[in-house]
Amino acid sequence: MSRSVLDMSMSLDGYIADPHDYLGGDDGERLHKWADAETGPVQQFRGEWKAAGAILAGRRTAELMDHWGGDHDGAPIFVPSHRPPSPAARWGYPLVTYVSDGIESAMEQAKAAAGDRDVQVRGGASTVRQALEAGVLDEVQIHHIPVLLGAGHRLFDVLPSEIELEIVQVIDTPEATHIRYRVRR
Amino acid sequence: MSRSVLDMSMSLDGYIADPHDYLGGDDGERLHKWADAETGPVQQFRGEWKAAGAILAGRRTAELMDHWGGDHDGAPIFVPSHRPPSPAARWGYPLVTYVSDGIESAMEQAKAAAGDRDVQVRGGASTVRQALEAGVLDEVQIHHIPVLLGAGHRLFDVLPSEIELEIVQVIDTPEATHIRYRVRR
Repeated sequence: MSRSVLDMSMSLDGYIADPHDYLGGDDGERLHKWADAETGPVQQFRGEWKAAGAILAGRRTAELMDHWGGDHDGAPIFVPSHRPPSPAARWGYPLVTYVSDGIESAMEQAKAAAGDRDVQVRGGASTVRQALEAGVLDEVQIHHIPVLLGAGHRLFDVLPSEIELEIVQVIDTPEATHIRYRVRR
Repeated sequence: MSRSVLDMSMSLDGYIADPHDYLGGDDGERLHKWADAETGPVQQFRGEWKAAGAILAGRRTAELMDHWGGDHDGAPIFVPSHRPPSPAARWGYPLVTYVSDGIESAMEQAKAAAGDRDVQVRGGASTVRQALEAGVLDEVQIHHIPVLLGAGHRLFDVLPSEIELEIVQVIDTPEATHIRYRVRR
């Protein structure tokens, strides 16, 4: 059974990047530093990322990442957007699909492509809000990083209503507290 | 050795209250629901709150709580504010002290009053920012609640710089993930 999983590293003050899309620290990679380790939890998450059957990415995230070069570890990428794709995404990337009729449709196509594998969701506040509003987000995997970034792009902005979550798993490491939540409907 | 500890319940989207200072849910108490349980972790936190030697509270928080009736489980309350206190705090509460010369001074007085017990910090983004900027916050105990409140008052707003934290303790319960951080200086 394919699930959609938003998987993001977030500072304690709720940021996923600083105002210039750096990730904090002297090297601009602070929020992702935990993933450099070779410990069991990190390997588990790397395994999940690699095992994804498809990616649903917000447009800004996809463009900031240059569409991951055209695929995400071999998985196809679906980008919900009402505007036409940029030239690179129009011409060069057979595994990148822009979906103009909404995030439900994008998720439907991503799940169809993923088969029984998961759809990994990548994006910021706008994509997260749309996915939650449309009811197409099954799980939220947050890597809570012990840092206050101070400013930047938040993962969650204003939502039209409260949404209950259920804690599915907590993995406690010195570098991060990895909490997986299920979205209650 | 007395420590200052910010102890707050926060939704996954970073809110400590909704726009009307309710705490979410049908009964307006969602964020504090975890504290109704009679489990070990809850008793531990209740013990910490009761054991506090003094409270440093942001003015808005203190006023919203009617200064907890004049003391916080018997502990004195210090409120950093450049404006004079409201009539109730001027006339009625011998254990409530408004401190007009800054949060460093307020914390100094709170720690002196607390002796070797902890100072519990209560407040929102403004108080937290001032305490962090002044370097007078030792620890942050966040009760991460599995809910998206959607809107409201955030615990952390913009800070002038990044601040590194250290994870001291993680307590994993179905109702909340309790993470204690030490502020690195």
